[in-house]
Amino acid sequence: MMNALTQKPYVIIFFLLISISSYTQAKTLKQNQPCKQIILYYHDILFNGTDLANATSAQITNETALSHNFGMMVVFDDPMTKDGRLLSPPVARAQGFYFYDRKNTYNAWFAYTLIFNSTDYKGTLNIMGADPLPEKTRDLSVVGGTGDFFMTRGIATFTTEEVQGDYYFRLKMDIKLYECYNHK
Amino acid sequence: MMNALTQKPYVIIFFLLISISSYTQAKTLKQNQPCKQIILYYHDILFNGTDLANATSAQITNETALSHNFGMMVVFDDPMTKDGRLLSPPVARAQGFYFYDRKNTYNAWFAYTLIFNSTDYKGTLNIMGADPLPEKTRDLSVVGGTGDFFMTRGIATFTTEEVQGDYYFRLKMDIKLYECYNHK
Amino acid sequence: MMNALTQKPYVIIFFLLISISSYTQAKTLKQNQPCKQIILYYHDILFNGTDLANATSAQITNETALSHNFGMMVVFDDPMTKDGRLLSPPVARAQGFYFYDRKNTYNAWFAYTLIFNSTDYKGTLNIMGADPLPEKTRDLSVVGGTGDFFMTRGIATFTTEEVQGDYYFRLKMDIKLYECYNHK
Repeated sequence: MMNALTQKPYVIIFFLLISISSYTQAKTLKQNQPCKQIILYYHDILFNGTDLANATSAQITNETALSHNFGMMVVFDDPMTKDGRLLSPPVARAQGFYFYDRKNTYNAWFAYTLIFNSTDYKGTLNIMGADPLPEKTRDLSVVGGTGDFFMTRGIATFTTEEVQGDYYFRLKMDIKLYECYNHK
Repeated sequence: MMNALTQKPYVIIFFLLISISSYTQAKTLKQNQPCKQIILYYHDILFNGTDLANATSAQITNETALSHNFGMMVVFDDPMTKDGRLLSPPVARAQGFYFYDRKNTYNAWFAYTLIFNSTDYKGTLNIMGADPLPEKTRDLSVVGGTGDFFMTRGIATFTTEEVQGDYYFRLKMDIKLYECYNHK
Repeated sequence: MMNALTQKPYVIIFFLLISISSYTQAKTLKQNQPCKQIILYYHDILFNGTDLANATSAQITNETALSHNFGMMVVFDDPMTKDGRLLSPPVARAQGFYFYDRKNTYNAWFAYTLIFNSTDYKGTLNIMGADPLPEKTRDLSVVGGTGDFFMTRGIATFTTEEVQGDYYFRLKMDIKLYECYNHK
């Protein structure tokens, strides 16, 4: 009996140590349980040569001869709204660039920062990844954050909501954060 | 004897707690023990003005007057193969851009996404970093992932395997992931 | 007494397990206690068309008609010094690009790699984020690292130190790392 008493805790602690050291290697995260989720709508109004007042983005390189749109790069400073309406008050800005990179279909690649400066949030989220337009939803990486989003990481899921000719499109960005830090 | 019995576990648990709390601050990762490793070959066929069918990348800005190649930016949608042969079936696409950024030597900078859509893997890896060509191997950062690579991070080590004139080169990309997540 | 002895450790271990599993979800990081901090000064000498010898960066796209500077993109290979003097020996290079992205004010966006090759450090830091110049300090994300900075993450805080016309500016970059790894 004494023997059992003295040994049991060690056995348990041994397994504890094993489990602690192993969980650095293969952590489990539940994709449907982010520590924070924010859904916002991105409005891109490409400068058409005349609409100076409303345009929020402009082409900085031409398409190449390789194929339609391949290589066209756009810099943007776009409003982010809580609903899908362009004229709703923006709760953040999206600042960065995208370009098209496929010969036979529409495929974009984004790198940008979401800048929050509202009563809800102050800080930034940095995001990059491919945006293959033929897919209904596309996942990009949230690779870092600052301010209220200090050191965060996660996934931004894009859905195309509307395309109006060559000069306006709206994306739903469903931002799910899986690493949240209490900072002080 | 009773005293020892009652106290020992507490002592051990105390040290356990210390070790748990400290290991957030200075974690140990073994560089030679990634949780996943994938070696792939990247083939870049730069559009030369005529080879529309085979080209997989195109220059979107010219070199600057600062020096040869400085500032030349290329957008690519390149095949990734399991061996070094250009004509092997691609197991992923690399979509993104690179540019040259040194006056006196070749030095590139990459940001891109590896897109997997095979029976082995579905998902993406997002990668960025400097590629100083004079070095035999160059390390870039895997800053995020999606799908089967949900929330991963790691290192992508580049080795130049072949350069044919100005219009074809092949890189070996040795991708080592050090944060792997079981997602559900 | 025997009962208490056999049960207490289990109770403690139970709470231990709870606390271990919960701390993946909401970790605490102290913003004023980085695991490593490096302060460096970034010197950007934009090529003005004639100063080939001294220039460290060059414009690769023109500003757009959307507004002054909007869309102008610059590739750089800039020296990083330990103090604010341009002619101090560089301890690292900053290689990457920035562009301007606002209509009504100066706002930049950066993605770049700090390359260290000194007795102090060997390795790289990969950084991206928005640089809204009207703010006194701006936080960008350190999204990854290699070599001595293997797998690190953190925050790079920019402060503008000096601007001389259109062709020279100096930023203080206060780099605070919050994830440090002992690699072997």
